[in-house]
Amino acid sequence: MPTYDAPTRDLQFVLNEVLDVPNIDVPGYGDLEPDFTSAVLEEAGKIARDVLAPLNATGDEEGCRFENGVVYTPAGFKDAFQAMKDGGWNGLDLPEEFGGQGLPYLMGTAVGEIFVSANMAFNMYQGLTHGAISAILVHGTDEQKATWLPNMVSLDWTGTMNLTEPHCGTDLGQIRTKAEPQDDGSYRITGQKIFISAGDHDLAENVVHLVLAKAPGGGEGTKGISLFIVPKLLLKDDGAPGPRNAVSVGKIEDKMGIHGNATCVMNFDGATGYLLGELHRGMPAMFTMMNEARLGVGLQGYAVAEASYQNALAYAKDRLQGRAVTGAVNPDGPADPLIVHPDIRRNLMDQKSFVEGARAFTLWGATLIDRSHRADDDDAEGLISLLTPVIKGFLTDKGFEAAVNAQQVYGGHGYIEEWGMSQFVRDARIAMIYEGANGVQALDLVGRKLAQDGGKHVMAFFEMVKGFIKENEGDEALKTGFLDPLKAASKDLQAAGMFFMAEGMKNPNAALAGSYDFMHLFGHVCLGLMWARSAKAAQTALANGTSDKEFYETKLATGRYYMARQLPMTATHLARIQSGAEPVMALAADAF
Amino acid sequence: MPTYDAPTRDLQFVLNEVLDVPNIDVPGYGDLEPDFTSAVLEEAGKIARDVLAPLNATGDEEGCRFENGVVYTPAGFKDAFQAMKDGGWNGLDLPEEFGGQGLPYLMGTAVGEIFVSANMAFNMYQGLTHGAISAILVHGTDEQKATWLPNMVSLDWTGTMNLTEPHCGTDLGQIRTKAEPQDDGSYRITGQKIFISAGDHDLAENVVHLVLAKAPGGGEGTKGISLFIVPKLLLKDDGAPGPRNAVSVGKIEDKMGIHGNATCVMNFDGATGYLLGELHRGMPAMFTMMNEARLGVGLQGYAVAEASYQNALAYAKDRLQGRAVTGAVNPDGPADPLIVHPDIRRNLMDQKSFVEGARAFTLWGATLIDRSHRADDDDAEGLISLLTPVIKGFLTDKGFEAAVNAQQVYGGHGYIEEWGMSQFVRDARIAMIYEGANGVQALDLVGRKLAQDGGKHVMAFFEMVKGFIKENEGDEALKTGFLDPLKAASKDLQAAGMFFMAEGMKNPNAALAGSYDFMHLFGHVCLGLMWARSAKAAQTALANGTSDKEFYETKLATGRYYMARQLPMTATHLARIQSGAEPVMALAADAF
Repeated sequence: MPTYDAPTRDLQFVLNEVLDVPNIDVPGYGDLEPDFTSAVLEEAGKIARDVLAPLNATGDEEGCRFENGVVYTPAGFKDAFQAMKDGGWNGLDLPEEFGGQGLPYLMGTAVGEIFVSANMAFNMYQGLTHGAISAILVHGTDEQKATWLPNMVSLDWTGTMNLTEPHCGTDLGQIRTKAEPQDDGSYRITGQKIFISAGDHDLAENVVHLVLAKAPGGGEGTKGISLFIVPKLLLKDDGAPGPRNAVSVGKIEDKMGIHGNATCVMNFDGATGYLLGELHRGMPAMFTMMNEARLGVGLQGYAVAEASYQNALAYAKDRLQGRAVTGAVNPDGPADPLIVHPDIRRNLMDQKSFVEGARAFTLWGATLIDRSHRADDDDAEGLISLLTPVIKGFLTDKGFEAAVNAQQVYGGHGYIEEWGMSQFVRDARIAMIYEGANGVQALDLVGRKLAQDGGKHVMAFFEMVKGFIKENEGDEALKTGFLDPLKAASKDLQAAGMFFMAEGMKNPNAALAGSYDFMHLFGHVCLGLMWARSAKAAQTALANGTSDKEFYETKLATGRYYMARQLPMTATHLARIQSGAEPVMALAADAF
Repeated sequence: MPTYDAPTRDLQFVLNEVLDVPNIDVPGYGDLEPDFTSAVLEEAGKIARDVLAPLNATGDEEGCRFENGVVYTPAGFKDAFQAMKDGGWNGLDLPEEFGGQGLPYLMGTAVGEIFVSANMAFNMYQGLTHGAISAILVHGTDEQKATWLPNMVSLDWTGTMNLTEPHCGTDLGQIRTKAEPQDDGSYRITGQKIFISAGDHDLAENVVHLVLAKAPGGGEGTKGISLFIVPKLLLKDDGAPGPRNAVSVGKIEDKMGIHGNATCVMNFDGATGYLLGELHRGMPAMFTMMNEARLGVGLQGYAVAEASYQNALAYAKDRLQGRAVTGAVNPDGPADPLIVHPDIRRNLMDQKSFVEGARAFTLWGATLIDRSHRADDDDAEGLISLLTPVIKGFLTDKGFEAAVNAQQVYGGHGYIEEWGMSQFVRDARIAMIYEGANGVQALDLVGRKLAQDGGKHVMAFFEMVKGFIKENEGDEALKTGFLDPLKAASKDLQAAGMFFMAEGMKNPNAALAGSYDFMHLFGHVCLGLMWARSAKAAQTALANGTSDKEFYETKLATGRYYMARQLPMTATHLARIQSGAEPVMALAADAF
């Protein structure tokens, strides 16, 4: 069965040396001294390794059950959830006034990686709650916050997001769930929602659903949509959970993966709901949480890949098969370990260089969110809005690919459920789909984000890359291994942007046909930038006579691998983009 | 639930127009007139659509059971198997003297695609039998053939291949299963084999295991290995199955996919076995069937992709979501069908252009096997040996990717097992692993096949590509859309080969580090060649005033898509290859 050890050393490297977090001028960052963050990460690592990871495979195998209207989570989940509550982990980056610890979002993200790696399905109960809390924090009245948040921060109650209906996912303008205003100011909510993660379960005493529905008078399409709080149990006057609301589970879905999380069909049969935020402004309200939610899914992509990589690596060192082509390294044994074979290394290096680059990218993204929220930095807000579809789309595609690669290292054993590698693949697969399928991310990036604020944020990104290159050009080692490939990749990205500007004006399909490739091209440039920054940090540590030479040399070699073997992909993406709309749009729908 | 319709029109196009099969000078090919092959394919299509495809999802869901030593296949498999027997499908390309129909292997391949698309797990019971029959045909004595083949051709008995053991897959030199010679000329076989597809089941009255084991006196490693026939039931004097042999199922594996096929742990406890072929020559005996077996797995890659593509396409036409950016195409409906969106088309075209190219490539490969076996054509044998790892490795990687893409079209529904798209992904995954994991295919290609016979076969391949380009250069439409990209891709392949020659001499790791990329680079060039040939055939039909204009125009557009959007990948593969061994091998094993 797979095991997991939190990569606290690498997380610390990113926080302290790549991002230099304690010196970032954002309220709360001054407290993030290495000793403190290290202690937090070590603690999270312990619970991840000892409590969450052991339930990952068993939760997958057992799955959730729906019996007589009650949803049961797999054995052990209740105790583990209690341990999360006892540790106060959900409140880590939530306001102190509602029982949280008030740390920056960055710390929630770093700890989140650890929990997701250990048990993605389990962590979603907490993750969805976190998302719902954010929505109430931003859009709730003081009374709503006081009513709902303390019990949600403590995880006594959990939260959900109810958006999708059977006939519409992305295209939310089509939703049919209705909200009828009542005399007491509440609404009667009627309709069916599907794919509701953590929709119901036996881990908490109440579930607080956030539901998109149409109230009268809002007009057609998305304009008519409002957001409602619909609890599973209505609250009594003293605020404690009381009678059942008219919301029930229709069924739980049989899914490809994340079996430990109950994905529910939710039926609202005139359920009592409370308007959250402004009437008919439900869509903008959802969008305010989108950057965080999507960053959280991008994180799932590489976090699962980290877990699968750890196990693939262990297997590659342990399994004896074949001989090194340059001479036996284990001459007394029946064969050499798999890791001697160049193609196994190619596979492992693809995984390792992706995961470490993705970690730096995501944590950097989290600092931008903190800059935006804690320091009202509009440029940071603009930049993270631009990068969010890249983080979500690129990291989940690549994370899945990495999990498939990890499974491949196991040969036939990778296909047998007992070994646990299949689960990583099956779990990672959903991250490419939910929270906006990756094709929708690409559309958001090219159709919306690129041109936002007059293209200001993408220009700022290019300036940042250029600036870094210029600043460090004098360093010969950095230049050859990192800056030159980064420059070439960045040039490809700019050329793609130019193509969209020139051709997209005439024919929007010319830009959209290349949107998926652009998202990946952008992702490679971002990881290239993160690797260049990581390499600089590693060189600095080595120059300063670090006592941990091996770590930094490994970091440099891993980065060089990414630059030499992954970054050339940008040329192919550019060539595809420049082939324009014609190859993609040539066929009539009936001719397919 | 997914449905399936055999692509008989496209199969006919490849057979008659791309390959011009009736005019190929191979014994038996003269009979393959369009009317005849069309009738065969239509019949296969019917049984696939009506009998096999409806059992695909149910077989996946129910899986096989192992109770009291007996393996049960899913409901309906028995009747379907009877239908396959009644139709004589297994014997299609097997010798008439043992009850087959004696058609070329090519026809078995074309029909095989249809059956695999409809139900991969089910078809494996027959597929493994076919492989075992081939082994007995080549290596068996006349008596062995007479004893075993008639009942195997008729599917009254099925066959298996027993190679892998718990501690060794690819590295068969490590196997521990023993064969002890007995006075009567038979052997006592003792050991454990794992991952035995169709290892036991309730579909046939006997199972004929072909088992690799070590008999005394053969020496170390693979040299000591012999191949044995070990039946589940020993035969009585009259040839009918009698008492149980000492072979039993230890368990059946819980796998990621192909649930309808029983993957067994087989225990041989002094079972009676009969030497097949020469003593201590078991490995070469296995290798004689390798091209066919691996082509059959490559076929699984694109056959599953064909099935998943058909369903993704239907969903994309049916599901209403969003509006076309260039204006509503379904203004009276709530939204436009998914297929209006450029990125959905990009996704579908990736699948379609892959599957059709792969089909042509595989059927061309089957003609090479027929040339080798039926016309003793050594050049064809050399060429197919070279191409086999490409067919197996490239087509299964890309087939899996295509199935993942098809699942993606369904959005959240793709992740729900009920919709059936997850199964295609889970089933397709195994083809990248078994019959030699794809990394091993890459090693075989670069480490062995490239240099075989002094590099003669790869040179012949390049000459073929060059010849085709030269011959057709005068055709402007073909030149721009097909020949120029093919030339560029072929140049990349040659440059990669040159790099291996120059660097691999000094350091074999420099070649092996690029082996996986080389396999994919080669695959793209092969599909590029097949698309160029298909385009030529389509142009010819159009010039001749075909009555089926739409088919040929669609073919040309699909081909142009592949050339414009897939073939540029060769440049990235070349760049990776040329980065050499250093990035891949830099880290010490402990530094990972």
